[in-house]
Amino acid sequence: MTRIGFIGLGIMGSPMASHLVQAGHEVLGYTLNSDAYQRLEADGGRSAGSIAEAVKDAEIVITMLPNHPQVEEVVLGEDGVFAHAPEGALLIDFSTIRPESSVAIAEAGGKAGFRVLDAPVSGGQAGAEQGVLSIMVGGTEFDFAAATPIFEAVGKTYIHVGPHGAGQVVKAANQLVVGGTYALVAEAIVLMEALGVDAGKGLDVLAGGLAGSRILELKRKSMVAREFAPGFRIDLHHKDMGIIADASRQADIALPTAALVTSLIAAGRAQGYGALDHSALLKVIENLNGRGEK
Amino acid sequence: MTRIGFIGLGIMGSPMASHLVQAGHEVLGYTLNSDAYQRLEADGGRSAGSIAEAVKDAEIVITMLPNHPQVEEVVLGEDGVFAHAPEGALLIDFSTIRPESSVAIAEAGGKAGFRVLDAPVSGGQAGAEQGVLSIMVGGTEFDFAAATPIFEAVGKTYIHVGPHGAGQVVKAANQLVVGGTYALVAEAIVLMEALGVDAGKGLDVLAGGLAGSRILELKRKSMVAREFAPGFRIDLHHKDMGIIADASRQADIALPTAALVTSLIAAGRAQGYGALDHSALLKVIENLNGRGEK
Amino acid sequence: MTRIGFIGLGIMGSPMASHLVQAGHEVLGYTLNSDAYQRLEADGGRSAGSIAEAVKDAEIVITMLPNHPQVEEVVLGEDGVFAHAPEGALLIDFSTIRPESSVAIAEAGGKAGFRVLDAPVSGGQAGAEQGVLSIMVGGTEFDFAAATPIFEAVGKTYIHVGPHGAGQVVKAANQLVVGGTYALVAEAIVLMEALGVDAGKGLDVLAGGLAGSRILELKRKSMVAREFAPGFRIDLHHKDMGIIADASRQADIALPTAALVTSLIAAGRAQGYGALDHSALLKVIENLNGRGEK
Amino acid sequence: MTRIGFIGLGIMGSPMASHLVQAGHEVLGYTLNSDAYQRLEADGGRSAGSIAEAVKDAEIVITMLPNHPQVEEVVLGEDGVFAHAPEGALLIDFSTIRPESSVAIAEAGGKAGFRVLDAPVSGGQAGAEQGVLSIMVGGTEFDFAAATPIFEAVGKTYIHVGPHGAGQVVKAANQLVVGGTYALVAEAIVLMEALGVDAGKGLDVLAGGLAGSRILELKRKSMVAREFAPGFRIDLHHKDMGIIADASRQADIALPTAALVTSLIAAGRAQGYGALDHSALLKVIENLNGRGEK
Repeated sequence: MTRIGFIGLGIMGSPMASHLVQAGHEVLGYTLNSDAYQRLEADGGRSAGSIAEAVKDAEIVITMLPNHPQVEEVVLGEDGVFAHAPEGALLIDFSTIRPESSVAIAEAGGKAGFRVLDAPVSGGQAGAEQGVLSIMVGGTEFDFAAATPIFEAVGKTYIHVGPHGAGQVVKAANQLVVGGTYALVAEAIVLMEALGVDAGKGLDVLAGGLAGSRILELKRKSMVAREFAPGFRIDLHHKDMGIIADASRQADIALPTAALVTSLIAAGRAQGYGALDHSALLKVIENLNGRGEK
Repeated sequence: MTRIGFIGLGIMGSPMASHLVQAGHEVLGYTLNSDAYQRLEADGGRSAGSIAEAVKDAEIVITMLPNHPQVEEVVLGEDGVFAHAPEGALLIDFSTIRPESSVAIAEAGGKAGFRVLDAPVSGGQAGAEQGVLSIMVGGTEFDFAAATPIFEAVGKTYIHVGPHGAGQVVKAANQLVVGGTYALVAEAIVLMEALGVDAGKGLDVLAGGLAGSRILELKRKSMVAREFAPGFRIDLHHKDMGIIADASRQADIALPTAALVTSLIAAGRAQGYGALDHSALLKVIENLNGRGEK
Repeated sequence: MTRIGFIGLGIMGSPMASHLVQAGHEVLGYTLNSDAYQRLEADGGRSAGSIAEAVKDAEIVITMLPNHPQVEEVVLGEDGVFAHAPEGALLIDFSTIRPESSVAIAEAGGKAGFRVLDAPVSGGQAGAEQGVLSIMVGGTEFDFAAATPIFEAVGKTYIHVGPHGAGQVVKAANQLVVGGTYALVAEAIVLMEALGVDAGKGLDVLAGGLAGSRILELKRKSMVAREFAPGFRIDLHHKDMGIIADASRQADIALPTAALVTSLIAAGRAQGYGALDHSALLKVIENLNGRGEK
Repeated sequence: MTRIGFIGLGIMGSPMASHLVQAGHEVLGYTLNSDAYQRLEADGGRSAGSIAEAVKDAEIVITMLPNHPQVEEVVLGEDGVFAHAPEGALLIDFSTIRPESSVAIAEAGGKAGFRVLDAPVSGGQAGAEQGVLSIMVGGTEFDFAAATPIFEAVGKTYIHVGPHGAGQVVKAANQLVVGGTYALVAEAIVLMEALGVDAGKGLDVLAGGLAGSRILELKRKSMVAREFAPGFRIDLHHKDMGIIADASRQADIALPTAALVTSLIAAGRAQGYGALDHSALLKVIENLNGRGEK
């Protein structure tokens, strides 16, 4: 049993906190999404009135927040985690943010006497609810080992991929491949339909061969049917592609396919599809070809 | 038992012909690759001295050739299949060629009293040797049914995806997704390595989540190790991307991701990697970033 | 005074033929666009009833046709130029076609006793009417010199750029830069307008600096005003980008920016803007951003 | 005569300050590049020991700095311009930075009682030395009018393009078109050379027609000769493409051609060409095609 301060009970954080309670941990939560307190308390956790209160006796502090400005404010701010948590506490940041921010937070934590892991997840809301997230962890081997009971409670696979920031880099790589695969499948559908071929049957063949992927397995039927309820919203994937752009710039590398896919996802948002599932990249390719419904 | 004339005993055609013999069919082969006759005869098939001889009593004629000019010459030429095969014979073209050529051949066949299926395959040399190819078939339902024993002998899955040319369209879509996935994985590797992350561990995580794919499953270790023995050569994938370009142009559609991936594969060929496996797209992305070994 | 057989009196060929008549040459024209005969005769030229009649006494044969299939049929066909023109005649092909077709025609001409120049033009309908075309000439120095009086009659600048096909290569390069510049200006306009800046004023600044170009000089006002009457139609530019794709493939080179621009122009056509001026690429970029009028 | 505090005497700022002295203004300079003080004093200006000293009596404060972090520190910092300049002073920021930073500085200035113009320039070191810069100005009409004598001293053209930040937006659009044009010319050269055409002659034709541009006029001979001494360095253009990326993201727009060109410029830097002229984008395209010297 570990005393956990949990900051950020959104659609991901809320079920994760519940899993931690169910695993026997003592969870004290704080969130701007105050509707989530009811669930936390119903599940056996407790609500805090401030970050300070949530973390002041914590052995482990968890953050699950939208992007780096929020994480920086919550962790580094005057009323934040490092100002109020007990020295030696371990911060596990499950948020998906740019690698350089994770590194900066780890460095600031080190100076202030805290241990830090970046631990972005994949698997979406469904994975969080079912406690089967994939977790990509950056930081020391020692802290990774210490965090194992936490990862077991919320995830199915969790891998230590390198030093501080490495978790974010792997998450960025993941989002690059996921976004790009949607673009490829979208173009394959448009190609087949434009040439009079039943895209559903065609994708069945693709799914069974070298072109096969988790995305074809899970999403080919909904894409062909033009069902784009999220799932993972284009707005969020747009944010993640921005992290790839920042990381590429930091590393001084050129990723042309990622750059083009980033443009297409940005176009999805500009066309008003930000709240749809990222598979709605198909609509961008269709519109580009004058084939979308108007 | 069917009498089959088989034209084109290359690295794909030769094992396919053997599987047909083993399935009990009578195979009379013709090829420019004369080394292949020995294997055919050892397996119980017979060699013909000309296309005319190979097809003159055939119930089914099979072609497995490099590209559309070869298929057009072999099928439509003066000394070709339609000039010498018995009326009513069924031509199964396993070659990967552009859809419009398949349609033209089917139309010419129809006028000359022949039935035609386009039936490009995926699975490569290994799939051909093991008789587990995936086959994408365009043509009539009736002819598809008639060809079933042939498909069973050489393939594991075979799907009727639409009218004449539809098989080629689906194969083109397949190659688009496959080529693009290599580009994405290549960029993911460069991103991770440039930021100091162990790409092998990172790809292990990706392979287990939404980014997962057959390519990550089969090729991530060889890519990270920079082992690029073919497999399927960049030169061939370059040809296939040309088919996508032709088909897009014919259908008046714009596929920007495919266009960029086509450029990257062409660059691989221009950089001298034509004979390497298509996963060597990684070398193109590395060189673009000044990171390749020289 | 030279006896000229002129095949193809379209919107480009018709005024070119008139300029040749005005320069004192004897022009015998043949065209499928029969409305053009009236102008030719009014200007002092004569009409022929067939290609054979147009070229049978010609010293110079001129072709100005849509694309390579038309040129190949007119020049190489049974009833074509090489079958009926007097041995030693000089063929000047002003059409924009792929370099390899120009080379093939020159080779066929050489075998049949004809001299051939490829001489694609730029300057559009206005340039043709005013006799101020730019002409890019491929072939021998000797034939270029012989054709000078013709080029003087229809063009302002004419440059011998290399052997057979070289004129087409330079024209392809020209269309690459022109199409790409429209894409860049379109994106610059969308960037400025999206950020609340008066694009007209902004382009005025760009036109005066290192970003300046003939296109900004001639088209920035009409683009900002969304006036897209042709000019040079997207359909034709689409054809020309296809020539670049073919030439790149033939030369085994990768041109990623050209490939992307080709996609955007194809999208213009797919979105129904084929008959608009190529500056309507702006509509493609606007639509991509959900900013076009619907 | 105006009292000017000038912060940042680099390769651009130093000659600009001299032009202001020559135009009769009283210039008090501060810079980290202390070699520049000698020139300033030789030309009749004076050196300050701190930002505070440089601006404390200034009517106009000028900044010419590398990027937004430097401008933010110099202007907003504790020892910065807004802390020490007299209320009502006009800040003219000639730096090229992201539009949102210019807007933020103008807002901070407004609250602190200062007037602000963003006024990025184009024309490079040569333009600065000759006093013929193009200046793109964002801010109020009133402040633009007040700054006219300054602009006259250092520039040839200066245009008020809109509110705060608008100057930066137009500069970003300028760099998009300039960088993209280099990519297009580079691909045109590779296309022509790969097909055996003299690129020098070919570009002469392009320069005279619709493809013509300031870049072709000034740089085609040096590009064909592979002379890449700067000029404007790839490193700086890379920075500017980052501004375009930030501005696009802020405006929620997708600019695919800009995104690809940004990748190619980043590749130039990754390949070690950061200190070469931006026309060295040609080397990136050559290397992509295995055609560069090794």
